Amino acid sequence: MGRPISISSFATAEARLKALLNRRRPGFSLEADFYTDPDIYALELRRVVYRNWTLAGHVSEWRVPGDYRSVAVAAESAIVLRGTDGRLRAFANVCRHRGSRICLDEAGRADALTCPYHGWRYATDGQLTHARDMPDDFDRTPYGLKPLPLAEVHGLVFVAFADAPPLTAARDALAEPMRWFGFEDLEVAARRRYAIPANWKLAIENYQECYHCATAHAEYAARHTLMLAPRRRARVQQGMQSRLVAAGLEDLAVDRIDTRAPAGQTGFGYSRTALFDGYLTGSRDGKPVAPLLGKLAGYDGGASDFSFGGCNFLLAYSDHVVAYVFTPVDQHNAALSVLWLVKRGAEAGRDYDEAGLTWLWDRTTEQDIEIICNNARGLHSQHYEPGPLSTMERALAEWLEWYLAELTGDGRA
Amino acid sequence: MGRPISISSFATAEARLKALLNRRRPGFSLEADFYTDPDIYALELRRVVYRNWTLAGHVSEWRVPGDYRSVAVAAESAIVLRGTDGRLRAFANVCRHRGSRICLDEAGRADALTCPYHGWRYATDGQLTHARDMPDDFDRTPYGLKPLPLAEVHGLVFVAFADAPPLTAARDALAEPMRWFGFEDLEVAARRRYAIPANWKLAIENYQECYHCATAHAEYAARHTLMLAPRRRARVQQGMQSRLVAAGLEDLAVDRIDTRAPAGQTGFGYSRTALFDGYLTGSRDGKPVAPLLGKLAGYDGGASDFSFGGCNFLLAYSDHVVAYVFTPVDQHNAALSVLWLVKRGAEAGRDYDEAGLTWLWDRTTEQDIEIICNNARGLHSQHYEPGPLSTMERALAEWLEWYLAELTGDGRA
Amino acid sequence: MGRPISISSFATAEARLKALLNRRRPGFSLEADFYTDPDIYALELRRVVYRNWTLAGHVSEWRVPGDYRSVAVAAESAIVLRGTDGRLRAFANVCRHRGSRICLDEAGRADALTCPYHGWRYATDGQLTHARDMPDDFDRTPYGLKPLPLAEVHGLVFVAFADAPPLTAARDALAEPMRWFGFEDLEVAARRRYAIPANWKLAIENYQECYHCATAHAEYAARHTLMLAPRRRARVQQGMQSRLVAAGLEDLAVDRIDTRAPAGQTGFGYSRTALFDGYLTGSRDGKPVAPLLGKLAGYDGGASDFSFGGCNFLLAYSDHVVAYVFTPVDQHNAALSVLWLVKRGAEAGRDYDEAGLTWLWDRTTEQDIEIICNNARGLHSQHYEPGPLSTMERALAEWLEWYLAELTGDGRA
Repeated sequence: MGRPISISSFATAEARLKALLNRRRPGFSLEADFYTDPDIYALELRRVVYRNWTLAGHVSEWRVPGDYRSVAVAAESAIVLRGTDGRLRAFANVCRHRGSRICLDEAGRADALTCPYHGWRYATDGQLTHARDMPDDFDRTPYGLKPLPLAEVHGLVFVAFADAPPLTAARDALAEPMRWFGFEDLEVAARRRYAIPANWKLAIENYQECYHCATAHAEYAARHTLMLAPRRRARVQQGMQSRLVAAGLEDLAVDRIDTRAPAGQTGFGYSRTALFDGYLTGSRDGKPVAPLLGKLAGYDGGASDFSFGGCNFLLAYSDHVVAYVFTPVDQHNAALSVLWLVKRGAEAGRDYDEAGLTWLWDRTTEQDIEIICNNARGLHSQHYEPGPLSTMERALAEWLEWYLAELTGDGRA
Repeated sequence: MGRPISISSFATAEARLKALLNRRRPGFSLEADFYTDPDIYALELRRVVYRNWTLAGHVSEWRVPGDYRSVAVAAESAIVLRGTDGRLRAFANVCRHRGSRICLDEAGRADALTCPYHGWRYATDGQLTHARDMPDDFDRTPYGLKPLPLAEVHGLVFVAFADAPPLTAARDALAEPMRWFGFEDLEVAARRRYAIPANWKLAIENYQECYHCATAHAEYAARHTLMLAPRRRARVQQGMQSRLVAAGLEDLAVDRIDTRAPAGQTGFGYSRTALFDGYLTGSRDGKPVAPLLGKLAGYDGGASDFSFGGCNFLLAYSDHVVAYVFTPVDQHNAALSVLWLVKRGAEAGRDYDEAGLTWLWDRTTEQDIEIICNNARGLHSQHYEPGPLSTMERALAEWLEWYLAELTGDGRA
Repeated sequence: MGRPISISSFATAEARLKALLNRRRPGFSLEADFYTDPDIYALELRRVVYRNWTLAGHVSEWRVPGDYRSVAVAAESAIVLRGTDGRLRAFANVCRHRGSRICLDEAGRADALTCPYHGWRYATDGQLTHARDMPDDFDRTPYGLKPLPLAEVHGLVFVAFADAPPLTAARDALAEPMRWFGFEDLEVAARRRYAIPANWKLAIENYQECYHCATAHAEYAARHTLMLAPRRRARVQQGMQSRLVAAGLEDLAVDRIDTRAPAGQTGFGYSRTALFDGYLTGSRDGKPVAPLLGKLAGYDGGASDFSFGGCNFLLAYSDHVVAYVFTPVDQHNAALSVLWLVKRGAEAGRDYDEAGLTWLWDRTTEQDIEIICNNARGLHSQHYEPGPLSTMERALAEWLEWYLAELTGDGRA
């Protein structure tokens, strides 16, 4: 039987990609092939997804030596663990013997990594320390776990599956705002993984714009002001800015996101946007849902967007942080991990209520999944063609340019 | 990883198709590649499925301006709606902004089509009337919904996803028999969509022959006489013919189906076949299940086959019409929409009982699904080779020739 | 849309396979492409899977003329039946008319094979005897069911889907040990089919080594001694050997498995391994679970491995035999049929208890499925590379060489 070659042509994936790029109209959505061509998916895994950072969690999730988490991205799995020497490391979750997954759980604690298949054992620095019944001349040295890039940014732990541009510029530039919210001193109050039956880019594209907020997110749109007309938005924004300093914050915007990243670095960004009057935080009734973060002295009624690369976004309210981490599962399925973080030491039941904390973004995410899927279905039509983006989709337009630069390697040395 | 090219050869799909056609033996079933080769599926969607009509429903389903239905065929979806100007139109169910599906329900009523994603709004004639926050120089004119071919044939509403041969010859030639049954004055009493886990052609091939009726359809075979030996069938047929005129019908057969379609037109056909004595209609006990259709004056004990193109078949008993609409879902899954139509104004509970009305064809369809799936499974064997068709499979043989002509483009200018 | 060609190259599957073989390191696990490349899967079906024997069952399952069983292997299905002339035969389960499956059940009894689609009827020798309504000049002769290779080896019935190397050498060489256990006089007490969501080779590879037994199979490892260190194993082995003759057995080992098969023949093997002291058989408490097999005079506390080709393995305890038959379902799914056989005439409830008989290998198989799936997941990582096999994986290393020889055709004339 075998799998026959394409009708259309003998062109390699590269040649077809070039043709797609030649007719690309900036400011328009992408052609359907970017979502449906399996070769483009294979290319983008290698060039975009695996070469960029994925937020693995908060450093508080690796409290004790031996604490580990596994992180799934498409066909890959990483083990992120704190070594017995106290150092955080990441490894490919693949036994060097016959390739079995080693860590099967999402999280755990172990003083060595033992493959459940044949018992090969690795120290927490990745070295292979035990392998029964190997030939006498067997040298364990070259068979340590394969290390993966890992980066820590003021409490946030990132992993990549191939060389990813450094996060050092992000770490420097965002040190100040991350300090305000005490990012080093957060902890994870809730963590959920949402399955999105659509190409991963559609999920991120949806996150990149608030053009849909008015139509799709009644709850969000009653609290956040991102989708307001400029004049009205400026008014609300001014109200928040007048309260910033008293609340322990500063007026700051950092925009090195996407194609505006410093040369050779992962892009990043920071900005703060007002909530509607009456909302101190992103909660059902607008009232606090957890203790004030970091050294904040009060509520300014705003929410701060942080971004790290093309797939990791955080929203810092005054009393909690929500992180959104987008990953492909396969070409037509993505996952969104949402983490709700509160001040270290806050206790569930006493200082916060999980249902209240997660209400807004659980609801908003469920709504997003539905509209993303409608988008995916429509894209498969032969009658779909790229459409023009609105003025509220500029961040999306930029994200698409970043994606294309990564895909073609233009953004890399 | 990427998806590697075929073992067999570097041949394009066209070249492989040509080789298949060169060794084709008319009067035999098709080679397995027609059902298993993904490139042939892609070709046949473009050349056969999308360029032919799909019955969307009966005009009574679009009673009021704003009434719409969505019609799914493979990866496509059409919106068929009655405009505020009273006119029926069809559009690709794809927003011109970023491609979202617009109509998510199978049916509804709306005075404008609003995309649930970002709220782009289209008038019922397809024009884009509202798109928030677009750049100042944005011209909405070119961004109307993409119109699709639509045709009305005496109450039946057809849609296509690309240029389809006109149904005008069918409309003229079948005006008379459609008038007898009052096709303009029917309404849908029941509508069911059956999932068939097999290639769409296998589902239609099965409908094209009654060679299997004796073995697979006990209920059908006790009522319909299609599978009788010629002599015995002629006898029953004569009985019915003697009752035709009194019942308000005429002796007529129209055979412009498949490759015998008038040049440049969609094929069509009409014939009437006797039921077994004692059966006035296709019901459990042979007794009427709904009021007499159109201007019929009585029961002749027959059932009329209408066909429109290669995928739409209707069976007109004296008191109800059953429509069979076959569509691909993907290469290995098809859907069959069955509509039961009764005389306009007939009331469920009073004039007909849905369970009684649908009994025969619900049962027969479930049996068909099973045998079609057995066929699909066997076809995947390397030991399958095309087999000779029986004298009772002539219509099937002709359908296959029509399909091949469409697939190779031979049937088109 | 069509399915585009690979990113990597225009190379044919053969050329890619050659490249893989050139960099192959014997004594290491296989590269991931052997499990993930669809063209290699298509090649291996044709060259390895269909050209080798699959154990269909025990001859006692075809007791009476007309008894049949269907056997599924990947996309194929075989009918194995005892003819009215008493002879066992195998046929492709594909009607010569339009390709329907004929036998839909796993087992049954029939004096003719009638296709459920259109009623074509075949005699039990495969000849087409009835086909209604065929043209007058129709000659049934060439339309008999396609015969498949079948072989009987002292009560075991094997089927293949293409020419498979004879089992005659196996039959001769294993006549003696099969006689001890009365293979001709067994019957099937239980038969279960386990779904393994992994490539078929991973399932067999797992069966080829007991390196994982200590880590994955607590119950098995408390009974079987295969995974013991050589010195300790020799001691237990000697104990068993001292009891062999009294129990009616002999000290024998036959190793013509895999690449050591006699020229042009299917490979085979026999060996007996001690259970731990206190275990007379593979049962929960070590006590017998069924009557002694064949002419055995007592329990030696051992278990004998029989193998027939690359996919069929049997384990003969003194009171029952367990057969393991591995087959692909598709590239990423396999099936394992396990048969528990007891002495003919043994009665469930009186002579054996099914739950007790099946306990060990049902449990062990469930454990195997889990570790095989972990292996499959890890293999899909780009960070997987073939790893070195242990001294306890020599049989696995040999199986891999056999597989590669079959795949490249090196093992065949």
